[in-house]
Amino acid sequence: MYLTRSEYDRGVNTFSPEGRLFQVEYAIEAIKLGSTAIGLQTKYGCVLAVEKRLTSSLLEPKSVEKIAEIDCHIGAAMSGLVADARTLVDHARVEAQNHRFTYDEPIGVEALTQGVCDLALSFGEGSDGDKDKRMSRPFGVALLIAGYDTLGGHQLFFSDPSGTFVQYKAKAIGAGCEGAQSTLSESYNESMTLEEAEELALSTLKQVMEEKISVENVELARVTAERGYHSATVEEVGAVLDRL
Amino acid sequence: MYLTRSEYDRGVNTFSPEGRLFQVEYAIEAIKLGSTAIGLQTKYGCVLAVEKRLTSSLLEPKSVEKIAEIDCHIGAAMSGLVADARTLVDHARVEAQNHRFTYDEPIGVEALTQGVCDLALSFGEGSDGDKDKRMSRPFGVALLIAGYDTLGGHQLFFSDPSGTFVQYKAKAIGAGCEGAQSTLSESYNESMTLEEAEELALSTLKQVMEEKISVENVELARVTAERGYHSATVEEVGAVLDRL
Amino acid sequence: MYLTRSEYDRGVNTFSPEGRLFQVEYAIEAIKLGSTAIGLQTKYGCVLAVEKRLTSSLLEPKSVEKIAEIDCHIGAAMSGLVADARTLVDHARVEAQNHRFTYDEPIGVEALTQGVCDLALSFGEGSDGDKDKRMSRPFGVALLIAGYDTLGGHQLFFSDPSGTFVQYKAKAIGAGCEGAQSTLSESYNESMTLEEAEELALSTLKQVMEEKISVENVELARVTAERGYHSATVEEVGAVLDRL
Amino acid sequence: MYLTRSEYDRGVNTFSPEGRLFQVEYAIEAIKLGSTAIGLQTKYGCVLAVEKRLTSSLLEPKSVEKIAEIDCHIGAAMSGLVADARTLVDHARVEAQNHRFTYDEPIGVEALTQGVCDLALSFGEGSDGDKDKRMSRPFGVALLIAGYDTLGGHQLFFSDPSGTFVQYKAKAIGAGCEGAQSTLSESYNESMTLEEAEELALSTLKQVMEEKISVENVELARVTAERGYHSATVEEVGAVLDRL
Amino acid sequence: MYLTRSEYDRGVNTFSPEGRLFQVEYAIEAIKLGSTAIGLQTKYGCVLAVEKRLTSSLLEPKSVEKIAEIDCHIGAAMSGLVADARTLVDHARVEAQNHRFTYDEPIGVEALTQGVCDLALSFGEGSDGDKDKRMSRPFGVALLIAGYDTLGGHQLFFSDPSGTFVQYKAKAIGAGCEGAQSTLSESYNESMTLEEAEELALSTLKQVMEEKISVENVELARVTAERGYHSATVEEVGAVLDRL
Amino acid sequence: MYLTRSEYDRGVNTFSPEGRLFQVEYAIEAIKLGSTAIGLQTKYGCVLAVEKRLTSSLLEPKSVEKIAEIDCHIGAAMSGLVADARTLVDHARVEAQNHRFTYDEPIGVEALTQGVCDLALSFGEGSDGDKDKRMSRPFGVALLIAGYDTLGGHQLFFSDPSGTFVQYKAKAIGAGCEGAQSTLSESYNESMTLEEAEELALSTLKQVMEEKISVENVELARVTAERGYHSATVEEVGAVLDRL
Amino acid sequence: MYLTRSEYDRGVNTFSPEGRLFQVEYAIEAIKLGSTAIGLQTKYGCVLAVEKRLTSSLLEPKSVEKIAEIDCHIGAAMSGLVADARTLVDHARVEAQNHRFTYDEPIGVEALTQGVCDLALSFGEGSDGDKDKRMSRPFGVALLIAGYDTLGGHQLFFSDPSGTFVQYKAKAIGAGCEGAQSTLSESYNESMTLEEAEELALSTLKQVMEEKISVENVELARVTAERGYHSATVEEVGAVLDRL
Repeated sequence: MYLTRSEYDRGVNTFSPEGRLFQVEYAIEAIKLGSTAIGLQTKYGCVLAVEKRLTSSLLEPKSVEKIAEIDCHIGAAMSGLVADARTLVDHARVEAQNHRFTYDEPIGVEALTQGVCDLALSFGEGSDGDKDKRMSRPFGVALLIAGYDTLGGHQLFFSDPSGTFVQYKAKAIGAGCEGAQSTLSESYNESMTLEEAEELALSTLKQVMEEKISVENVELARVTAERGYHSATVEEVGAVLDRL
Repeated sequence: MYLTRSEYDRGVNTFSPEGRLFQVEYAIEAIKLGSTAIGLQTKYGCVLAVEKRLTSSLLEPKSVEKIAEIDCHIGAAMSGLVADARTLVDHARVEAQNHRFTYDEPIGVEALTQGVCDLALSFGEGSDGDKDKRMSRPFGVALLIAGYDTLGGHQLFFSDPSGTFVQYKAKAIGAGCEGAQSTLSESYNESMTLEEAEELALSTLKQVMEEKISVENVELARVTAERGYHSATVEEVGAVLDRL
Repeated sequence: MYLTRSEYDRGVNTFSPEGRLFQVEYAIEAIKLGSTAIGLQTKYGCVLAVEKRLTSSLLEPKSVEKIAEIDCHIGAAMSGLVADARTLVDHARVEAQNHRFTYDEPIGVEALTQGVCDLALSFGEGSDGDKDKRMSRPFGVALLIAGYDTLGGHQLFFSDPSGTFVQYKAKAIGAGCEGAQSTLSESYNESMTLEEAEELALSTLKQVMEEKISVENVELARVTAERGYHSATVEEVGAVLDRL
Repeated sequence: MYLTRSEYDRGVNTFSPEGRLFQVEYAIEAIKLGSTAIGLQTKYGCVLAVEKRLTSSLLEPKSVEKIAEIDCHIGAAMSGLVADARTLVDHARVEAQNHRFTYDEPIGVEALTQGVCDLALSFGEGSDGDKDKRMSRPFGVALLIAGYDTLGGHQLFFSDPSGTFVQYKAKAIGAGCEGAQSTLSESYNESMTLEEAEELALSTLKQVMEEKISVENVELARVTAERGYHSATVEEVGAVLDRL
Repeated sequence: MYLTRSEYDRGVNTFSPEGRLFQVEYAIEAIKLGSTAIGLQTKYGCVLAVEKRLTSSLLEPKSVEKIAEIDCHIGAAMSGLVADARTLVDHARVEAQNHRFTYDEPIGVEALTQGVCDLALSFGEGSDGDKDKRMSRPFGVALLIAGYDTLGGHQLFFSDPSGTFVQYKAKAIGAGCEGAQSTLSESYNESMTLEEAEELALSTLKQVMEEKISVENVELARVTAERGYHSATVEEVGAVLDRL
Repeated sequence: MYLTRSEYDRGVNTFSPEGRLFQVEYAIEAIKLGSTAIGLQTKYGCVLAVEKRLTSSLLEPKSVEKIAEIDCHIGAAMSGLVADARTLVDHARVEAQNHRFTYDEPIGVEALTQGVCDLALSFGEGSDGDKDKRMSRPFGVALLIAGYDTLGGHQLFFSDPSGTFVQYKAKAIGAGCEGAQSTLSESYNESMTLEEAEELALSTLKQVMEEKISVENVELARVTAERGYHSATVEEVGAVLDRL
Repeated sequence: MYLTRSEYDRGVNTFSPEGRLFQVEYAIEAIKLGSTAIGLQTKYGCVLAVEKRLTSSLLEPKSVEKIAEIDCHIGAAMSGLVADARTLVDHARVEAQNHRFTYDEPIGVEALTQGVCDLALSFGEGSDGDKDKRMSRPFGVALLIAGYDTLGGHQLFFSDPSGTFVQYKAKAIGAGCEGAQSTLSESYNESMTLEEAEELALSTLKQVMEEKISVENVELARVTAERGYHSATVEEVGAVLDRL
């Protein structure tokens, strides 16, 4: 079985006899090595929370950014290869600004997610149209894109290395995603307040993290209709942790 | 046998000694892993119905779109790799708008299908003319394209990864296509009303779906001469399910 | 023997020690998997007849086109990969129209065939001059090109994946070509009327087809000096079948 | 021995340890599978004669052209892959017309042969200067180029897939070249008349052909200072055959 | 285990089944062969210290530069392949000057680090946008980038071949990085003076260097808000060594 | 040993562990299969002599040119692949004419040799600057370039497939080069007359040729300050042979 | 061990698991097959000395140039593949002249060395910016670049195939480099006169050369602030040899 499989899995873009694209599946594996990230969508706003792995006490915690602001109404949590994620985030920011410049309005959350996925799909040897962004392999990163627009309200999208995206009410990615996702399934309900969502996000992270949760090794952000993207300060994270 | 075969099936565009193109055949396999889609053509209009696989209760059902509007008189149901399908659908929409812009009339259903198939055929390493669309592998997706034009009336086309298309009166694709197709063969007749077609589509899906059919995990659309493409609302789907 | 052979047959354009190009030979095999097509040239015109394989009763027979009009005085019957054939036919149509536009006269049948064969020969990795048409593999299709021009009268040409073409009085291609060709050799004579040629074409098809011949699963066309290309209607096909 | 050899013979342009280019040698093998062609140079003109292989009685003999007019004072007989030969002949014709257009005089026979050989040499992966002509493999064809110019009189050149050319008084190529060449060595003398040369050419062909020689399965042409290139009519071929 | 691994590790940009990019990991190994470099960030400024390997007494020590000035407020210590490092440093200098030219202000330390990492990420076969800088393999070099800007104060960034960067208070790279990093963890505290930081840097180097430390085989530099980048003279290095 | 070797010798431009480029060495082998060529430099001028291999009595001896005039003051004798040699000679002629056109003086012999070697060195996959000349493999040809210029007097240069050239007083290349070179070492002296050099060249060829030497199967040329390049006529060759 | 190694050493630009680039290391091996070259830097100037391998008594010694003038104040001794060295020297000369033309001053010795190393680093498949110079493999050559500039005085740089350069007081490269370098280490002192340096260079060469040293098989050059680059005449070399 494994032998046969290995004959198809090194071509970047080659189907196996069962119709699978192994390189994309392996890129998805890269995400399972990444730190856990959690996203929640409520009526009152979206919440993103991410574990930070601080491999050394001398490392500056604030330089490990796992949640990024895409535009003032959209944020993204990432898991997987950090440098790949940065490329996708940069691309998303440019898409968002281009939209503002062209149409003089904020980009929709789904449209932005689709722009990110179009880039993720376009890897491969023959592709050299947009040379600064395209890669010769799949992007080894998954994103949780949370935002607000007048059309769809608060929304949470999940995109993976295959260029697929779907909308979730609550989604966990990364190393601890299986445990975290089942916790979310049990505890999430649509009428949660934003505060309850933040508590659920951090308490779920707490379960799956190997290290003890602290204000330094998690990141938290919310996107609301009123205030847009807001990255939680250390004090705000501390307040949520105290409530747990 | 398998050994000899495996020597020819990794080259994207290499004939085997029997004259087969294995990578295209494997891309067709990718469709058999996809969710089931069904199309029906009647005198009164076409019907498209698709199973949605909701892998998580937290997933937003309406973000899993398996039927897309190409133009106001054409729709497409898809099965296979989601990101590939989106690329083909985007291409089809541009073709349709280009036709309107150039000739000031809606594109014919067959002409549109041919445009999609031209793109599907043009994969491969040496092809870099239209860099934004061409792929270094076959598209792993099949489409059911339903539409209306004054020349051919209501029509249903089926296209596959080899770039081939044919017209069907009723066609099923995806994981449950074999069972569904034989049900269609037995139950389809050309004098069906549109309502009967919708019932046949959903009852066929019901048989082949692993999960229990509901208004959330199927999508339904119709294309008629009078109203063009119309995606069924949850209430409309519910009404059909009630009639079963 | 087979082992040694297999070392040379995957390079798209590599000679074996015996001076053979295996990929081209394998593309010729692809044609032997196709449906049977027959062409006849008489003093009064040319006849093309093709078997249609209707894999499903729900398939629209008229959407399976195996005989195509190239220009009003030339038609082509095809066998092999359908999508490849469509590419060659499109190319032939453009060549024909270009000739009319440039010289204000219909293109000669041989000149048109040569244009098709030039494209068929130009596959391969290094070829990227005319990006929209060239392929990274040989075209897996054979054509029977029938037409009329004032220089050569009624003519029937046969082209194959190697880019070679020759003129035939009567030629069969596709899955049943061996049996059909020997029938043609026995029964063809140059003084046949067009009606006799149509009868010979369909009776030959009848012998090699697995399914029972009917007005639905064969296609028939004639090219004459007076009327040019004419695709037979269902009634005309029925009339010939009745005469058998 | 064979094992070691096979390691070098698939690279299109790779030297073996003995300094050989196997792909070129294999292309030369392709010519040994071709039909026999003979060229003779006399004081009074050149003669080209070629065997035609008529694989079917329904094949139109005159469509199998193995001798082509390059310009009104030069002709070429070919053996090997037909489609490759056509490409070289087309290229030669353009070279000849370019020369006329630029210098207002017929091209010299050696200069034309050199132009053909320059193209034959320029195959390979990295070559994409003149995209319409260059190939990713050696041309599998040998030519006998016969012509007249005021500088060199009547001349016969032989070119092979390696891009090499030499002048011969009498030369045979193709499947029967060994037997034919030894007959030519014995029977050729420089004071032959053109008629004797035609007889020698056809009698030599007669010996090496598997089928019985007839006016249908041979082609004959002569190039003389007075009349230039002249393809023999069926009657003229018949007259020579009668004289044998 | 090793066997399976070796099947994925030669493709420059191919994921292994576990989602790893081996060529990037091997490039990281190249750094472990390099000389040790140490960086420290204090309130009063940053310190960079590097071991120089003088393989011959005849080698001119000052020509072995392992710490480079990027701009007057930023410096970088390097470990790994020297020529790769020079390319990254050249790129960083151009980025810094471009920023000054465009915005008339010094570039931020993080922005500069990101510019270096963008280049580091963009290796691979398909990338040919900025031909003078991109490589067909990962850069085999790690950098410690130390600088001062008004936004972030004194900062120390670490970048590796994967294009990832993080901020450290104290970081060691190269052959002796493990021992050095643990010494730094024990001895570093944020309230150190710049002199104490220099002593800690050199005493840490002293422990991990195979040769006896001297003014010739180490390099030392500091970046402060007041004086910017300053490479220590031999006398200054000597003074620190005397203090140890 | 041979096994290990074979792993490095098929890459056109790959170093073996011992630092060798096997493809270049194999191209040098191709020269050892070529006909013998000899060059001599005397105070009075240079002499080039080449064996012609006449494989058939019907071959026109004068069409086998192994000595070519580059410019009126430079000639070149060649050994190895004939078509490769012609490409190099064409290139050399253009270089010589370009020099005359640009500087209005004859090109120096060393400068011309360097121009030929620059082309010989520039083979390989990535090289596509001067598309008409560069090859995807080393040129399988060695040249003896003899000429006169006012700076260096009479000079004889030898160039090989690696792009290296050196000046010789007397040099033999090709199949018989070893025997011929030792004869030259014994018999050459710098005070020879041009006639003695011609005799030495032909008597050396005579020893190493398999066939009996005659005016037909050798070529002879001289380059002198007074007369420039002069190809010996049959009578002149005969006169030298008579003197032997 | 060797087996594992061989899996990584054929990719031009592939890291081994230990972080090594084997093709570059093999190119360094190519230098160990070259003739020995020695460079010395003194207060009074630099000295370059090279062994010439005269493989035949008929070879013109002065055509084997192993020391080249780059500009009037810089010279370079080379060891390794001769044709590669010529390419680097040509590039260095152009850099030097460009600098003079742009800045109206002689180029610095280190800047010139860096220019050479930038070219040496830029080999590889994806690099096609400066097509005339870049190679698809590392340059198999090491250089000793000696020169004088007002900033650094007399300087001697050593560059290798990895694109690395360092400054030496005395350095030996090529086949005899190990013995020569240890001799240099013992005998070199910084207060040497230029005459003593020349004697040390030639006496060191004498030890490691297989052939007896003579005025013909060594080359000697000096670069001084006053006279710039000066290639020693046969008499000058003889005078130094007499002093030994």
